[in-house]
Amino acid sequence: MRATTIHAPYDIRLEDVPDPTIDGPTDALVKVVASCICGSDLWPYRGENKVTPGRRIGHEFVGIVEEIGGDVRTVKPGDFVIAPFVVSDGTCPHCLAGYQTACQNMVGYGSDQADGGQGEYVKLPYADGTLVATPEVPDDSLVPSLLTLSDVMGTGWHAARAARVKAGDTVVVVGDGAVGLCGVLAAARMGAERVVAMSRHEPRQKLAAEFGATDIISERGDAARDAVLELTDGVGADAVLECVGTGQAMTTAFDVARAGATVGFVGVPHGVEAPIPTMFRRNVGLAGGAAPVRAYLPDLMADVLAGEINPGRVFDSELPLAEVAEGYKAMHERRAIKVLLRP
Amino acid sequence: MRATTIHAPYDIRLEDVPDPTIDGPTDALVKVVASCICGSDLWPYRGENKVTPGRRIGHEFVGIVEEIGGDVRTVKPGDFVIAPFVVSDGTCPHCLAGYQTACQNMVGYGSDQADGGQGEYVKLPYADGTLVATPEVPDDSLVPSLLTLSDVMGTGWHAARAARVKAGDTVVVVGDGAVGLCGVLAAARMGAERVVAMSRHEPRQKLAAEFGATDIISERGDAARDAVLELTDGVGADAVLECVGTGQAMTTAFDVARAGATVGFVGVPHGVEAPIPTMFRRNVGLAGGAAPVRAYLPDLMADVLAGEINPGRVFDSELPLAEVAEGYKAMHERRAIKVLLRP
Repeated sequence: MRATTIHAPYDIRLEDVPDPTIDGPTDALVKVVASCICGSDLWPYRGENKVTPGRRIGHEFVGIVEEIGGDVRTVKPGDFVIAPFVVSDGTCPHCLAGYQTACQNMVGYGSDQADGGQGEYVKLPYADGTLVATPEVPDDSLVPSLLTLSDVMGTGWHAARAARVKAGDTVVVVGDGAVGLCGVLAAARMGAERVVAMSRHEPRQKLAAEFGATDIISERGDAARDAVLELTDGVGADAVLECVGTGQAMTTAFDVARAGATVGFVGVPHGVEAPIPTMFRRNVGLAGGAAPVRAYLPDLMADVLAGEINPGRVFDSELPLAEVAEGYKAMHERRAIKVLLRP
Repeated sequence: MRATTIHAPYDIRLEDVPDPTIDGPTDALVKVVASCICGSDLWPYRGENKVTPGRRIGHEFVGIVEEIGGDVRTVKPGDFVIAPFVVSDGTCPHCLAGYQTACQNMVGYGSDQADGGQGEYVKLPYADGTLVATPEVPDDSLVPSLLTLSDVMGTGWHAARAARVKAGDTVVVVGDGAVGLCGVLAAARMGAERVVAMSRHEPRQKLAAEFGATDIISERGDAARDAVLELTDGVGADAVLECVGTGQAMTTAFDVARAGATVGFVGVPHGVEAPIPTMFRRNVGLAGGAAPVRAYLPDLMADVLAGEINPGRVFDSELPLAEVAEGYKAMHERRAIKVLLRP
């Protein structure tokens, strides 16, 4: 089969690799219907994370189950399934508590145990603990929104949940990537009265508004903080979603949080520090992390199938898998918010 | 009147100072019945915080209202009142949201606007926003427990609340000072099934057990972490209370927290950093800060008056105010957990 590999910074290739096969009783083999490129894939792409030459890449995909191991109970060949961005056993104490991203037997895609998501097929262990099947094979128009449940929509949801967003809140979302935009959608869906999106890119501003943002702030740094304080009579936001992962984004997030608020953070942190004295003085909490999207998948899937949310709008580019390298380039250059790939 | 002043590290004096008087319409003048020494008073005492020579000190007291300004409505002369450790206006957005320690007009004791608590009288502004009166003048035996509501019991409660302790939880409390011990009491009162107190001092271990600790861990650092993991089948605690404020205590707190847990921190941080990568990977949150004890006072007061909790047990020493310097020495040398002072 063909699968995406990374060889060095800016060197993404689609290559022939061995066809995967079922090895263990809890395995599933999935024929990929659609996959996509994640903001976190750009870290190795840009050389900011170490690259192992030839490593398979991609961790967001949906597809049709092709074959299962003898102990798999919840999915069967022919099912349309959504794959969370990590493989979890579903049975350890952390999985049972709803924190599948801390699974004691967690497996990453693009490893010895699971294929990368940006390929034609993915074999993975722990099918029952990982995959979620739709009641029936969905209409193709729903594929983009279902695909976001692999990562970005579940991650945006996690940011809002970690930030303890509640009905009537004023919520600030820092970051206008796909996760930030999904955070806007999540906050609106949770009943936030005012959702302030920080974005300086017009297409993203438009999508944020479509997702429920009531206010757009295009400033950054101190000016962004001042704008939020002006919007909130000097009080600050009830909840803040930090969806970037940089030090500047985290600083802004704490700057705009009111006393007693929580910053929900889901951007993979790179050089981020928590402002402990500020947190202490104003009782601003920090919560979040690698989103347990598996825990949110059933409910969010129901919302997508019912047409309540349409997070697939974050895909502004669709390419054949053969053009995966161009997809990375487009996202790196911010020409695309998020690229969907069809094998 | 006489009041306690600090002149230099280890130089605490009881001195004659001008008698305070009512100046403004929201003021109250309180005759102190009992005050006490706080762990945070030891920071300037030890020279770890800057000392302004001659500054008044003390921020925990109970007393009888002597006189009020013309606009005061909720307390009257003759009332027995409990004073939270900061003065808050009770009307700003942060006070209304229950975060009085972020009051937009907050006043500290031992300042131009409010006397220090370790004296014979305290004049303070914002009587209605700050003081809470008991229904009647309580029996003297209840004074120690009511006095803890000024700070340590409300602070321990805040740690447990910030850590989101719930019924059935396994809770670890890092720190066996008065706040940590009150944290044990709070966690037990909230229904925690297992409360693990970290303490290496026998009298404190005993009091922790009396307050509801089910397990005592006397190890520190990695050994303490290993002990908690052994108690929890390698999973970690559902909630952790960090009641010290040092880097080592914070490290231990995160080490023993299970995925998805929250570390509630109330120890005034000195050189503390948050382990962002660990927090992200395991979804362990950090919340807390300067406790809004005013928000908890009515309920905790009711618990004390009903005999449901007896946090006054943290006072293992009572001295006349004239011996305040010895009180500081005893706490500094850890001969006393907490010293109560009677003017």
